[in-house]
Amino acid sequence: MSTLNWSSAEKKIAKQAYDAALKREYAALLQQLKDSAEKANSRDDIWDIYDHLTKQRKSIDQRYDYRYSQLIFVFGILLRQKWLEESDLEGLAEDKLQLIRAFANG
Amino acid sequence: MSTLNWSSAEKKIAKQAYDAALKREYAALLQQLKDSAEKANSRDDIWDIYDHLTKQRKSIDQRYDYRYSQLIFVFGILLRQKWLEESDLEGLAEDKLQLIRAFANG
Repeated sequence: MSTLNWSSAEKKIAKQAYDAALKREYAALLQQLKDSAEKANSRDDIWDIYDHLTKQRKSIDQRYDYRYSQLIFVFGILLRQKWLEESDLEGLAEDKLQLIRAFANG
Repeated sequence: MSTLNWSSAEKKIAKQAYDAALKREYAALLQQLKDSAEKANSRDDIWDIYDHLTKQRKSIDQRYDYRYSQLIFVFGILLRQKWLEESDLEGLAEDKLQLIRAFANG
């Protein structure tokens, strides 16, 4: 994967797609936090929220890696998890899109 | 401190005071969480809430210790921090109250 060449136009598309996915993910996390805090009623609820944030922080840290050698995997996972849509990746070369789709469906 | 004798009446008072302080502390933490989640608007806000919960969990774990050998210190700190009032400790022997006040003011 590290031998793929990213043109400067592709790098720009990749960066926008990456940022968009992260933004959507954080918007969802923020909304979950608001909803669960509003409903919270006990110590257990507080620590459930805390544990959820712990897991989400780890999950985001693990998945988001902007090295070009990793982007195909990263986008494949984000596409599978619906944080990205195909249209976000429009403009990438077909060989990259095929690999990303393969990971998304794998 | 470990040589102090706790009568069964005192043990009952101590347990009630301990539980009351913890309950107040959690009620305050729950309210803080609700307020800060409602106002949260960004990733930084999410992780500020998370960091605050991390600190509070550690702080609660460190301060709440129901061994009779520790209760004088525990109550002294909770009195100083206003999670306990003197009236919560009413019925404990005067020697204990004096020690607790000494820690509270120390």
